[in-house]
Amino acid sequence: MLRYLTAGESHGPQLTAIIEGVPAGFPLAAELINIDLARRQLGYGRGGRMLIETDRVEILSGVRWGKSIGSPITLCVVNRDWVNWQEKMSPHVRHRDDKLAVTRSRPGHADLPGAMKYDHHDVRNILERSSARETAVRVAVGAVAKALLSQFDISVSGFVTELGGVKAERPNLPLDSLLQKVAKSELFTYDDIAEAEMKGLIDRAKESGDTVGGVIEVNVHGAPVGLGSHVQWDRKLDGRLAMALMSIQAIKGVEIGCGFEAARNPGSRVHDEIYYDSVRLVEGKITGFYRKTNNAGGIEGGITNGETIVLRAAMKPIPTLYKPLKSVDVVSKEPFEATVERSDTCAVPAAAVVAEAVVAIELANAFLEKFGGDSLVEIRRNYDGYLDYLRSF
Amino acid sequence: MLRYLTAGESHGPQLTAIIEGVPAGFPLAAELINIDLARRQLGYGRGGRMLIETDRVEILSGVRWGKSIGSPITLCVVNRDWVNWQEKMSPHVRHRDDKLAVTRSRPGHADLPGAMKYDHHDVRNILERSSARETAVRVAVGAVAKALLSQFDISVSGFVTELGGVKAERPNLPLDSLLQKVAKSELFTYDDIAEAEMKGLIDRAKESGDTVGGVIEVNVHGAPVGLGSHVQWDRKLDGRLAMALMSIQAIKGVEIGCGFEAARNPGSRVHDEIYYDSVRLVEGKITGFYRKTNNAGGIEGGITNGETIVLRAAMKPIPTLYKPLKSVDVVSKEPFEATVERSDTCAVPAAAVVAEAVVAIELANAFLEKFGGDSLVEIRRNYDGYLDYLRSF
Amino acid sequence: MLRYLTAGESHGPQLTAIIEGVPAGFPLAAELINIDLARRQLGYGRGGRMLIETDRVEILSGVRWGKSIGSPITLCVVNRDWVNWQEKMSPHVRHRDDKLAVTRSRPGHADLPGAMKYDHHDVRNILERSSARETAVRVAVGAVAKALLSQFDISVSGFVTELGGVKAERPNLPLDSLLQKVAKSELFTYDDIAEAEMKGLIDRAKESGDTVGGVIEVNVHGAPVGLGSHVQWDRKLDGRLAMALMSIQAIKGVEIGCGFEAARNPGSRVHDEIYYDSVRLVEGKITGFYRKTNNAGGIEGGITNGETIVLRAAMKPIPTLYKPLKSVDVVSKEPFEATVERSDTCAVPAAAVVAEAVVAIELANAFLEKFGGDSLVEIRRNYDGYLDYLRSF
Amino acid sequence: MLRYLTAGESHGPQLTAIIEGVPAGFPLAAELINIDLARRQLGYGRGGRMLIETDRVEILSGVRWGKSIGSPITLCVVNRDWVNWQEKMSPHVRHRDDKLAVTRSRPGHADLPGAMKYDHHDVRNILERSSARETAVRVAVGAVAKALLSQFDISVSGFVTELGGVKAERPNLPLDSLLQKVAKSELFTYDDIAEAEMKGLIDRAKESGDTVGGVIEVNVHGAPVGLGSHVQWDRKLDGRLAMALMSIQAIKGVEIGCGFEAARNPGSRVHDEIYYDSVRLVEGKITGFYRKTNNAGGIEGGITNGETIVLRAAMKPIPTLYKPLKSVDVVSKEPFEATVERSDTCAVPAAAVVAEAVVAIELANAFLEKFGGDSLVEIRRNYDGYLDYLRSF
Repeated sequence: MLRYLTAGESHGPQLTAIIEGVPAGFPLAAELINIDLARRQLGYGRGGRMLIETDRVEILSGVRWGKSIGSPITLCVVNRDWVNWQEKMSPHVRHRDDKLAVTRSRPGHADLPGAMKYDHHDVRNILERSSARETAVRVAVGAVAKALLSQFDISVSGFVTELGGVKAERPNLPLDSLLQKVAKSELFTYDDIAEAEMKGLIDRAKESGDTVGGVIEVNVHGAPVGLGSHVQWDRKLDGRLAMALMSIQAIKGVEIGCGFEAARNPGSRVHDEIYYDSVRLVEGKITGFYRKTNNAGGIEGGITNGETIVLRAAMKPIPTLYKPLKSVDVVSKEPFEATVERSDTCAVPAAAVVAEAVVAIELANAFLEKFGGDSLVEIRRNYDGYLDYLRSF
Repeated sequence: MLRYLTAGESHGPQLTAIIEGVPAGFPLAAELINIDLARRQLGYGRGGRMLIETDRVEILSGVRWGKSIGSPITLCVVNRDWVNWQEKMSPHVRHRDDKLAVTRSRPGHADLPGAMKYDHHDVRNILERSSARETAVRVAVGAVAKALLSQFDISVSGFVTELGGVKAERPNLPLDSLLQKVAKSELFTYDDIAEAEMKGLIDRAKESGDTVGGVIEVNVHGAPVGLGSHVQWDRKLDGRLAMALMSIQAIKGVEIGCGFEAARNPGSRVHDEIYYDSVRLVEGKITGFYRKTNNAGGIEGGITNGETIVLRAAMKPIPTLYKPLKSVDVVSKEPFEATVERSDTCAVPAAAVVAEAVVAIELANAFLEKFGGDSLVEIRRNYDGYLDYLRSF
Repeated sequence: MLRYLTAGESHGPQLTAIIEGVPAGFPLAAELINIDLARRQLGYGRGGRMLIETDRVEILSGVRWGKSIGSPITLCVVNRDWVNWQEKMSPHVRHRDDKLAVTRSRPGHADLPGAMKYDHHDVRNILERSSARETAVRVAVGAVAKALLSQFDISVSGFVTELGGVKAERPNLPLDSLLQKVAKSELFTYDDIAEAEMKGLIDRAKESGDTVGGVIEVNVHGAPVGLGSHVQWDRKLDGRLAMALMSIQAIKGVEIGCGFEAARNPGSRVHDEIYYDSVRLVEGKITGFYRKTNNAGGIEGGITNGETIVLRAAMKPIPTLYKPLKSVDVVSKEPFEATVERSDTCAVPAAAVVAEAVVAIELANAFLEKFGGDSLVEIRRNYDGYLDYLRSF
Repeated sequence: MLRYLTAGESHGPQLTAIIEGVPAGFPLAAELINIDLARRQLGYGRGGRMLIETDRVEILSGVRWGKSIGSPITLCVVNRDWVNWQEKMSPHVRHRDDKLAVTRSRPGHADLPGAMKYDHHDVRNILERSSARETAVRVAVGAVAKALLSQFDISVSGFVTELGGVKAERPNLPLDSLLQKVAKSELFTYDDIAEAEMKGLIDRAKESGDTVGGVIEVNVHGAPVGLGSHVQWDRKLDGRLAMALMSIQAIKGVEIGCGFEAARNPGSRVHDEIYYDSVRLVEGKITGFYRKTNNAGGIEGGITNGETIVLRAAMKPIPTLYKPLKSVDVVSKEPFEATVERSDTCAVPAAAVVAEAVVAIELANAFLEKFGGDSLVEIRRNYDGYLDYLRSF
C-alpha cells in the first residue's frame, strides 16, 4: 500500500513529501519528475509566481543508483524565493513580528474558516498551507506513481475539456496523436478552434480583472480488469478517485464516465453492452470481453472493467482577483475589498497535471493492493500470471 | 473516530454492520433507525422487492436502556425472504449445486469485472454483494450518525432535484416547510409541477421497459465552522464527502456548491463575499461572519465555513432493464440478452436517503475528530466551549 | 489487507465479528471454527460460565457452499444465556431500571478507568465489553485466519510454558508429536511432571480463593522469509505481533525469541549465525540459507527470516477472586471488598488459544500484503512464484 | 490524530520526518529537540559514529515564530558525513558501481531477510534503512510529542534498569531527584553501585569484542485517567505502546507494570486495590480514587487509570561484533566471518531515549483522540473541563 504525506508552506524553505510503500527495483529519476513539475507551471493565463521560479525536485531517500530500493522516498522542492521570506516565515520565535500579520481573509479561500478552526488571527498561518503551491509536491508524488504504472503499460493523461464554458471537441485521433496535440497546446486541449476561443476568454478576463475556471479530464489507459472492489464502501475505486480529485484545491465537482449526463438519459442508452470476441485473444488483447461504448468510464461496481478510465473534474475560477471582492478583517471586523496585483487568471491546465498525479497515486495504490509484491520482478511475475489467467477466463 | 464495516449478501440471512467509536450517552432506538429504513423503501417507480419486505433493524450491541454505552454497535437487518434462499445461499458445502450457477453477467453491474477479479464463474458470488441491497444497512449506520449530529442541532436532508432530465425548481420556503413538502412527495422533491412531469417520465419508461436516473441533493444545516482541514489532502472534508457519495451504488458524479457551474462562470460571480454583523451575535448566531451567497456549498479549503453544506450526486438509471441489453455468458462466451421481469424503474428517491446516510457518517466523523470526547456530556462541553470561542473570535 | 471489528457485550444477545478482505475461494466451515471455540473453553481451572455454554459460531455472510466468496464474513456467537439477561441488557429504554446498576468497581479490571472515561456510574456498561468473553469471537476470526494460512502450510500453535511460576520443560519431539501431547494436556502443555505441579498449584489457589497466571507461547511454522518490513516503524512484524498479543485481556508482557533473556546475554551468544546448504534445495526446503539456533524467534529487522516464529506472552492472574480485594463504590465512594462466588481460577490455557488467533490474524494480514491476490488460485500462483524465486536467490 | 512517516538512509543526505496532526499554538523549537538528539548520542559504551557527528534538527515546515501553526511539521537531520557517501548512496544511475555492492549479510540484522524480500543482492540497500540511525529522527518526532504533552504536565522519562544481567536498584527518591540522578549517569541509571558494575561489564565486553544488551524502563507521569479504550482490540493503549516499543530496532520484549512477574504471582498479590480519599481533591489531585500499589503499570483494560505508566523493553546486544559471527555471502553462498572494526559495545542508554520518544508519540496520539481540538487553547479548554468533571465524578 502506498501512503504519502506532504508538508511545506507556500513561502517556506521547501515542500517535502515522504512516500511509503514503493517497492524495490523501479527506475526513478529526478529528471522524470521534473518534467511534470514543469508541465504544472505551464498554461496560458498564468502570471506572477510561475514566471519567477522553475520547480525542481530532489530525491533525498529511497532511490539509489537510479532505482527504488523499497524504503520511503523523500521528495523535496526547494522554494527559490526563500531568501525573501526567511524572517516572515521563520520557525524561530526571535523573528516574531506581529505587525506583519495578515488579517484580511479572502473569499473563496480557506482563510476565514481555517483561522477560526485553528485559532489564528494572522491569516498567513492558514493561507501558506492551503495555497495551491502544495500541489507542486503532489505532482512529484504522482510522477513516482506514474513511473510505477508505466512499467505495466498503464498511462495517465490529463487535458482541458472545457474552459469558462467553452467546450473542446475531441477529435477522433489515436491516443498518441491526441496526446501530442495536447502537449503542444498552451491550454492542454485538443481542439484548435475552442482553444482560440478559450484564450480570448482568458484575455478578456485578465483585462477586466476577473478569473476563469474550467473542466479537466483524466484518462487512464491500460489498467487491467479488477482494480478496486465492490465488497466494502471504502474499497470502491470510483470513491477513492473522487476523493483524490476533490481534494485538489479549487475542485468542486467530479464525474466518472458520462457523469451527470448518465442521470439525464434512459438506462437503455447509458449502460455499455458486453461483447466477446476470441480473435482479440489471438491479437494479444488481455480479454475477449469488450464494450463498444464506455459510458461507465471504465469502472463498474467500484471495479475497473478493462476499458479506459474516464474522470472529469470541475475547477472553480481562482478566487484571488484584481476585481475586488468584499470581505472583512478578522481582527478589526471592518469590511475591506480583497484584491491582488499580480496573480494567475487561469490555472486550469495546471490542474490537469495535478489531476493526473492524484489519479496515478490512487491507481498505483489499487494496483499494488491487488498484485502485492516487494520488487519490480515480483510484481511483474504476479501481474503476468494474472494477465494469463484473464486470457483463459 | 467512527469506523464501520457492513456485511451481508442481498439474499443472505441478514445484513450486518458494526460501528466503532460511537461515544457513550447518546439516545438511540431501533424505531428511529427504522424510519430511515422505511424512507429508503419508498419512492414512485419502485417495484418488486420493495413491496415484499419492510426492513427493520435490530440493535445487538452497544446500546443499553436506550443509550449508547461506548462499545461497538451491531446493527442487523434480517432478510425476510431468507427461507426461500437457504440453500442457494447456504454457507455449507453440502448445499453446493453448480446447476444453480448464474453465468450471465449484466452490463452496468459489477458482475463481469467482479467475476474476473475474484475468479468466479458463478456471477451470483458477485451480484449478491454488489447489489444496492447493501445500502439498507448503510442507511441504518447513517441513522445512528444522524442521531449523534442531531444532539448538536445538525441536520442532514436529502431530496431529488432532477429526474431523467426534468429539473425541480426550489421554492423559497423556510427549511421546515421545505422538508415537509419533500416528505410528502412520492419523489422526495419540492416542485409539484416537476414532480408530475417526473412521474409521467417514470410511467413511460416503465411501459417501454426502460429505467430512469436523476440527481439528488443533500443539505447539511447547522454544521459549525471548522470541520475538515486544509492541511493534508486526505483530511479535506470535500474529498471525504465526495468519496462517500461516489461509493453509493450507481453514483457517477458529485458536486459541492455550484459544482460544475463554478467552472463555467467568472471568478467575480462564483466566490461568496464575506460580511460581518455584530447584531448576529446578539441574536444568538454562532459567528458574526456570514455570506449572502453560498456557491461554495459550505466548504472552503476543505473546511466547513458555517454556511449550509450543499452536495449533489448523479445517479445513473438502474441497469437491470426489461428492455434487453446485449451481454455474454461468462462460461460459454455466447451472447445473450440481459433482461429482467420485475425490477425498479427508478430508485432515485431511495438514493437520496442513502446519500443522507453517508454524508451524516462523514460529518459525524469530522465532528468527533474535532471535538473528541467519549460521552455526550463531554462532547457537549467541548462543543459549547468552541461555540463560545467562535462568538468571541 | 484484513480488517476486522468485533462487537458484543458479555451478556448481550451475541458476539459478532465482521472480517473484511478475505479473498475468494478459501474453504471455510463453521465446524472448523467451532473446534477452536471449544478449545478456548477447555483447561484445568475453569469454573462457572465455561461449564454452562458451548460456544458455536454461525457464518452469516461471505461464505457460500463451503468457500469464501470475497465479500465480508460475518461471524456470530450466540449467548445461550441471553434469556436471563434480556431486560438487564436490553437496548430498549423501557427496560431501564437504575436499581440494577453495578456500582462496585473491581481492581484489575477496566471498571473504574472505563467508567470515568465514558461517564458511567453503572459499571456494567464497562465490564460487559471489557470482559474476556469478547475473545470468543476473536478466536473465531483467528480460526478464519488459520484456515487461510493452512492453505500455504503455515500453522500457528499455542501452548502453556509456565504457570504460576512453574516452568514446563520442552521435550525434544517432532512438531506433530509435541502438538499431540499439548492437545491431550488439560493445561495445553508438554511436560507431564510440570503439569502435575501446575494442577496442584491451581487446586491450592482455588481452595484459598486465589487465582493463577502464566506464560503462553505461540509458534508459527512454515512462514516464508519476507513477511513484515524494516522500512517504516509501523510495518515491522514484531511490533504488530506485540500489539496483537498485548491487546488480549490480562496480558502484561510479550517476548519474541529469547526475549528478555536476550538482554542478559552477550551478543556472541544471542545472534543466530547464518549457514547455507544447497542440499536443502534438493530436499525441497525453500531456501538454502538456514540457522542452527533461533534466538531471534524467526524475526530480524521486523521481517520473518524463515525460521519458526516464537512468541511468548505473560498473563496476569484473573482479577476476580473469591479472596476479597479492597475497592470503592463509584457512587457512594464507600470502601467494599470485591469478591465473587464462582469464577475461573486459571484461564491460561484459554489464553493460548486466543494468542494463536491474534497471531494468525496478523500473519495472514502480512501474508496477504506481500502476496496480494483476490482468490486462492491467484494467491497460490503468486506465492509459488515467490518460493521458486527464493530457491534460486 | 498524529500520523508520522520517517525516511532516510543511514548514509544518505539526511533523515526526514513529516508529522501530521499537530494542533496549532504549541511552542516548539529546534533547540528543545536537539537536547533529545544529543541525549540519544550519549551513553557509556558508544564508539564510532556517535563521536563523529552531533545531530541537529531543522524544522522546515509547520512551525512559525516559535509555535506550531497546525500544518504538517517537517523535521530534518542532516548527515554530516554525506560528502563521503555521495556516490555510494547517490540517487543517480550514473553513479552505479556494482563493485561497491555489499554481499555479506550479518546475523541479527535485517540484511538477509530484507535482501530476499526486496530482491536485492547488494545488502547495502537493506542495511542503510534498517540501521538504528533511523531512530535519530524518531527521537525528534518524540520530542515534538513530549512538547505537546508537557503543556498538560505529562512527562515521559526513560532509564536503564538492567544491563547485561546487572540490575539497578531503584532508590526511594522523589521524581525530580531521581531524574537528576539519571541525567548525570553515563548509563542513564540511578544506582551507583550497579552502574559501576555495568561499566565494568561493558569494558570487558569491549575487550573481548563482544556486545551488551539490557532493559530500559519508561515512566509516564501525569497522564489522566481515560486514555486508550477497552472497546476494540486495536484501541487498547497497552497494545499500541507494545507495538511502539517493539518497533524499536533490537527490542525483543516488552512489559507493562510488573510484566512477566504478574504471571508468577497469585492474583491476591498482583492486583492493585482501589482507595478513595476526598482530601485528595482538596489537595488538588485530579481524582479521589487512588492505588497504593501499581503492579498494573497505570493501565487497566487498555485504559490509563491515573497511576504512573510503567513500561519496560528488553534490548538485545548489538549484533555487529568484533568477535566474528558465522555467516554466508548472499551472492557466492560462501561462508565468511562477520566482523567489524569499530562499533558500539552498548547502546542501551540510547534506546531509553528512543523509547521515551515512541511512548510519547503514542501518548500524545491517545491524548489528542480523547480531547480533540485544533489549537492549544481549545485542547486546554477541553482538558480542563474533563479534569473538573473527574474531580466531581
